[in-house]
Amino acid sequence: MKKRVVLAFGGNALQKNGEVTAEAQKKIANEVGEAIYELSSEYGIVIAHGNGPQVGNILIHEEGAASEKAPAMPLETAVAMSQGQIGYWLTQAINNAFIKNGKQAKVASVVSQVVVDKNDPAFDDPSKPIGQFYDEETARKLAKEKGWTVKEDAGRGWRRVVPSPRPIDIVEKKTIIELVEDGIIVIAAGGGGIPVYRTKVLKRIKGVDAVIDKDFAGEKLAELVKANIFVSVTAVPNACIKFGTPEQEAIGRISAKEMEKYLPEFKAGSMLPKVQAAMMFAEKGGTGIITDIEHLKEALKGKAGTIITK
Amino acid sequence: MKKRVVLAFGGNALQKNGEVTAEAQKKIANEVGEAIYELSSEYGIVIAHGNGPQVGNILIHEEGAASEKAPAMPLETAVAMSQGQIGYWLTQAINNAFIKNGKQAKVASVVSQVVVDKNDPAFDDPSKPIGQFYDEETARKLAKEKGWTVKEDAGRGWRRVVPSPRPIDIVEKKTIIELVEDGIIVIAAGGGGIPVYRTKVLKRIKGVDAVIDKDFAGEKLAELVKANIFVSVTAVPNACIKFGTPEQEAIGRISAKEMEKYLPEFKAGSMLPKVQAAMMFAEKGGTGIITDIEHLKEALKGKAGTIITK
Repeated sequence: MKKRVVLAFGGNALQKNGEVTAEAQKKIANEVGEAIYELSSEYGIVIAHGNGPQVGNILIHEEGAASEKAPAMPLETAVAMSQGQIGYWLTQAINNAFIKNGKQAKVASVVSQVVVDKNDPAFDDPSKPIGQFYDEETARKLAKEKGWTVKEDAGRGWRRVVPSPRPIDIVEKKTIIELVEDGIIVIAAGGGGIPVYRTKVLKRIKGVDAVIDKDFAGEKLAELVKANIFVSVTAVPNACIKFGTPEQEAIGRISAKEMEKYLPEFKAGSMLPKVQAAMMFAEKGGTGIITDIEHLKEALKGKAGTIITK
Repeated sequence: MKKRVVLAFGGNALQKNGEVTAEAQKKIANEVGEAIYELSSEYGIVIAHGNGPQVGNILIHEEGAASEKAPAMPLETAVAMSQGQIGYWLTQAINNAFIKNGKQAKVASVVSQVVVDKNDPAFDDPSKPIGQFYDEETARKLAKEKGWTVKEDAGRGWRRVVPSPRPIDIVEKKTIIELVEDGIIVIAAGGGGIPVYRTKVLKRIKGVDAVIDKDFAGEKLAELVKANIFVSVTAVPNACIKFGTPEQEAIGRISAKEMEKYLPEFKAGSMLPKVQAAMMFAEKGGTGIITDIEHLKEALKGKAGTIITK
């Protein structure tokens, strides 16, 4: 049986050249497609991805041109839209990488709802800025009208902030497992997943305006599909200590326990969640990897990247 | 083995009360969810859906608030976004219908690319109006800038028109079949599918700005997944002759051949494509049905709706 791997790509990764058109992002998706093709003969692959800049732009459009006849979609639905968007680009790119090699791909990008806990402390402290910038007056007016929380964002203006709760389950997990077992490359939990919670009494699932970190969602996905390896694919080949200083040192193989002492080294919202997610997966007995797309193949063989085990 | 059914719902169906907010559309999606739950014990179900008003609003937002930093996504990507959006609403609604009945649903909404022929005559005659209305000057300017075709739309202003080619294949067909065979309810070919074509020499797939009629896409899906029944779910229980006149007569069971003589009775862009799609499916040996959601269960048993067979 093939080893099962969950790869979590950043939404930023598709805009690495600073170009944000669909055409430019599709070009980078093609590089991802080539990498997936390379790995697909050896591994069962599940792809998670972020959506930061993409869902940001969707919200800017939805809110910037909203009217009574065409009202803005809420954040949870915007996340679903970004799953369609990025899922399409990746699906097409993987298809074309296979076609290029005379083969036919089996890929499914699945709309994914990720369950969060309504009692997650994140809901009491919305901290993730999203969407466009406003002046203070407009921001406060929107906050009142729409029940948003707004905050001043690093001198750049006022923005809506939303909670970033931890993922606890994925509604589509069984479907995703069956797909992987059928040898299908699955794209799931896009943008960290559409955040939903279970209502208290009736246990219905219901969308909630929040964003889930794609590394934590990817780790949860890896756990649920019983993956052997979880990889947070990022812009650098390794997690480093003293990053950006002359004493910078790349971390190679390391135990989760040893990694813990380096946690204060990593930047929140950047390398920190990747390291935390990889550690969480290692603590459950899997292999957690942090590397870039160029070193992915070698890292999966244990020859590159930051590799965290129990 | 369960009979396999493809149900094609209109995108308009989700806005039947004239309400266009996400909340209102989700409420109607819940009715669809209940209907699917009812059918799921007896039938293997694949759901196709339209996206007319939804993708229209996405384009209005994308184009209305576009900037260099947040450029508008092209139509093909907007269709993918609408697949995420509507796929999410339907997935959640089906999940909740099962939960309400003490069960757990297995549903997958799959990003779907539908192949069209670049030589389809529709590309020489773009005729499907989409997105917002412009004054003539702006419309002509945009046409020049973006390579759009624009037309005056029934005295209401100028709009972009796009080709509506026929579907010839679905890229994800094998995946969809495996899902159905695993007993999973599949949502596919949303909005008629993301229109793609195969490039001449390298045979890559590439998105193209067009919209595919959801009834023709649904019929193609039914054919590819070897469904027994294709249903175009619409607002009326039957296709009718002399519709809206005192002599109106509902069509029940009919052969595709007999139905052909009534074709001039049906309105293009409304009942006509539904009748044509159901006839096409009947001519290939299946059962093509036109009915509303209220009569769906009875129609599948042959006791309601317009039922077309060979």
